[in-house]
Amino acid sequence: MIFSTLNINNDEPIYMQIERHIIDGIKKGELKKDSKLPSTREVSKFLNISRNSVISAYEELESKGIIITKRGIGTFILLEGETESYEYNIDFSSRINEYGNTLKNLDIIKSELTYKKGMISFKSISPESHLFNLDDFKRSLLDAWTYEEANLLNYGYAKGYKPLIDYFFNYMKEKSVNTKNKDILITNGFTEAFDIVIGSLTKPGDVILCEEPTHNTALKIMKAYGLKVVQVKMDKEGLNLNELEKSLDKYNPKFGYLIPSYNNPTGIVTKTKRRKEIYKLFGKYSVPIIEDGFTEELLYSSSPIEPIASLSGEGNGVIYIGSLSKILFPGLRIGWIFGDEKLIDVLESVKRGKNIHSSFLDQSAFYYYLKSGAFSRYIKNVRKYYRDKYNLVMDMVNIHIAYEYVTGEGGLHIFVKLKDNINSRKLLDLCYKDGVIFMPGDIFYEDDKGIDTFRIGFGKVTDEEIKKGIKIIGDNLKLLSK
Amino acid sequence: MIFSTLNINNDEPIYMQIERHIIDGIKKGELKKDSKLPSTREVSKFLNISRNSVISAYEELESKGIIITKRGIGTFILLEGETESYEYNIDFSSRINEYGNTLKNLDIIKSELTYKKGMISFKSISPESHLFNLDDFKRSLLDAWTYEEANLLNYGYAKGYKPLIDYFFNYMKEKSVNTKNKDILITNGFTEAFDIVIGSLTKPGDVILCEEPTHNTALKIMKAYGLKVVQVKMDKEGLNLNELEKSLDKYNPKFGYLIPSYNNPTGIVTKTKRRKEIYKLFGKYSVPIIEDGFTEELLYSSSPIEPIASLSGEGNGVIYIGSLSKILFPGLRIGWIFGDEKLIDVLESVKRGKNIHSSFLDQSAFYYYLKSGAFSRYIKNVRKYYRDKYNLVMDMVNIHIAYEYVTGEGGLHIFVKLKDNINSRKLLDLCYKDGVIFMPGDIFYEDDKGIDTFRIGFGKVTDEEIKKGIKIIGDNLKLLSK
Repeated sequence: MIFSTLNINNDEPIYMQIERHIIDGIKKGELKKDSKLPSTREVSKFLNISRNSVISAYEELESKGIIITKRGIGTFILLEGETESYEYNIDFSSRINEYGNTLKNLDIIKSELTYKKGMISFKSISPESHLFNLDDFKRSLLDAWTYEEANLLNYGYAKGYKPLIDYFFNYMKEKSVNTKNKDILITNGFTEAFDIVIGSLTKPGDVILCEEPTHNTALKIMKAYGLKVVQVKMDKEGLNLNELEKSLDKYNPKFGYLIPSYNNPTGIVTKTKRRKEIYKLFGKYSVPIIEDGFTEELLYSSSPIEPIASLSGEGNGVIYIGSLSKILFPGLRIGWIFGDEKLIDVLESVKRGKNIHSSFLDQSAFYYYLKSGAFSRYIKNVRKYYRDKYNLVMDMVNIHIAYEYVTGEGGLHIFVKLKDNINSRKLLDLCYKDGVIFMPGDIFYEDDKGIDTFRIGFGKVTDEEIKKGIKIIGDNLKLLSK
Repeated sequence: MIFSTLNINNDEPIYMQIERHIIDGIKKGELKKDSKLPSTREVSKFLNISRNSVISAYEELESKGIIITKRGIGTFILLEGETESYEYNIDFSSRINEYGNTLKNLDIIKSELTYKKGMISFKSISPESHLFNLDDFKRSLLDAWTYEEANLLNYGYAKGYKPLIDYFFNYMKEKSVNTKNKDILITNGFTEAFDIVIGSLTKPGDVILCEEPTHNTALKIMKAYGLKVVQVKMDKEGLNLNELEKSLDKYNPKFGYLIPSYNNPTGIVTKTKRRKEIYKLFGKYSVPIIEDGFTEELLYSSSPIEPIASLSGEGNGVIYIGSLSKILFPGLRIGWIFGDEKLIDVLESVKRGKNIHSSFLDQSAFYYYLKSGAFSRYIKNVRKYYRDKYNLVMDMVNIHIAYEYVTGEGGLHIFVKLKDNINSRKLLDLCYKDGVIFMPGDIFYEDDKGIDTFRIGFGKVTDEEIKKGIKIIGDNLKLLSK
């Protein structure tokens, strides 16, 4: 009896379950063409269900041409089950292109040692979730819903949610940036903003100048697009101007990519005077700058510094990428590109070609959150919290770690260069066994440099973990130094 | 007096306003180097504010090295204002690459006639917002918040929100798809899914086979990546098999891109038998299929048809792109790629390189919405609503329009081929003047074909608009036919 393998559930109409059971039986070859089905009466008795359900199922199947009922004779299968299998397989790995392979090979989530439960992790630079002012956010979410409702659920605009665009315009103005002939495109965070700019304005082989070291995600994206990355050395004030001019002259780069407000990974803040000199040099060689406004809200020791974009007046030489989400709700993925309005018009079409637009629900909730003043309260709160963490980390590093230098003036991380060319990956291997993990520095460099450096992120560690973890790093360093 | 242009507001501390006013004055050249500032007493009197605020401002400025107070003599400006301007300009338009230019030139939002208020629009195929079950969605949003809270706001996973991935796995199983050795990546809708697959698996010059006509966004993306698109003719059952085999043989394509469940723009549903034959042919030539599950929930006249992915058993020949959001909340931008697990592993890294991950807030809210059963209720409701619209549109088209043929068996649109090679763009120009707009069909074709076709979308028009609008199209058509 074909129905002995059918278990009726309560989640969907019984006739549909019977129908599917018969179709499956045909597919599997258990019900052959021209074979006879049990009568509706027999089935209803066997399964202890209403006969009407069985009749409905048979009628549906008959209307689809799958079975036929001959009056007084019985019900028969009309279709042939599958006997042949014609599945085929593709070797996709050989078909992945250079772009895909580069992104895979440089995916640090897959290539680096991973955090395991119970470990002390200095690897991440994401913020501490328990500091998020959740009630404020929930209120903003409900505000967004109340004001916009269905508007948030139907198609929106590629450029972004208008009130949020206006908010970011104002944000730029407050940073002394001239907004004349400029426009803004909302993106899914910094990463998408950078991907859109690089993907639309470069060709394989183009040279990009950037800081040494620099943000590993930016490095990854530039390499995926086949670009040549030239890194320029930094001192504690920012890019080395001699080296910068030499490189501008030698390479005729397509862009400069700079993180002046808080270099990742070093935490170096480019000083105001140096910013001007850097800007002038790029101008002299007519090379546009992509400015990454990374975590500029989180400076502890210096006063707010105006972005390089504020120096360019009505000129269009700077494309500024902003993202508040590095310290606030990274999960929402909201960033923006600010630049020449004709350029933004093209990038808007690129955004539309990539994913139509960013979520309007998220953009609207984020807007109401910013507008409510909750962001300022949050920043005030976390700045003190992270400054204390920073000071503790620096104290511990000074006690336990023999470094050549340490950099970092804010943000959620510091950067250490070890003495005597000690390999930070060897140090990491030892620490990993002791349950401590950090980010080796070489991923921020081109050409196998930075092997004696590492980044300590302290966004998500407790004071106890900082004390214990950095001591473990120091102890293992002593072992390696012997 | 430098402070006569300062208007004190209540939004930020007064000392900060004074500080910024002085800095601005220096920048603008209104306060020269070595010039003397008014005393704190004078300023407090002049602005009618507390003297302490002025003292704080001066102290802050002094600590930054901007002014200096000489005891008993006065306070002086230390910095030089900007006299030189060194802004520079870049001609970005000449720097946009092929990819960016193609996306711009094929951006129909910019190149096609646009809807103006008061018009009757058959242009869009987006769903009617007033049918969204908003209370259900709000509940799901709050459920997501209650269960996940801060988790939704910090970094998530590139692959997606786990419960939603599991939900889509189950959804595939219910469509008789074998999920062994398969995996799922959540994307920002169909567009991003297609962009990721195409962007990671093709090289410029590769050939992609697809239906004639086909989805204009897919065409746009393929062209942006420099691919050669070969379209294969369809009949009412789906792709023409002879033509398909000829093209497979001749072009050695990298992929097939198919919309079997509801071709956009024609609305042709590829029949079950034809699906098998198509699948077999692609298998014979070892060419993978990208299956676009477009709007398959919205079939009216046929019973649910299983996707081509259900034919491939444990084989990996089909990459299925799903998106419920075409009929449900397009603004949330949620779709998924289902395919070979090793391939998905690479595409996950690509997704991370493009924008880290899709919004977890949206994914979670969407998951709770689907899980609550609200989606099934919604589909049941809109299927009837849109079926009625569809029938009315077909009636009106039969009355008013002299067509060669009309196609469409569900979804939110039908497709018309006019008699006598009448140019649908000329028809559109006439209708536009009468306040009616639709989508000319040539954008769905390669090589200047389809000029005598157009798409009528009816997701967002009232019955009255359908009656009036299609009559206007018919009247103008008669003018052109004379």
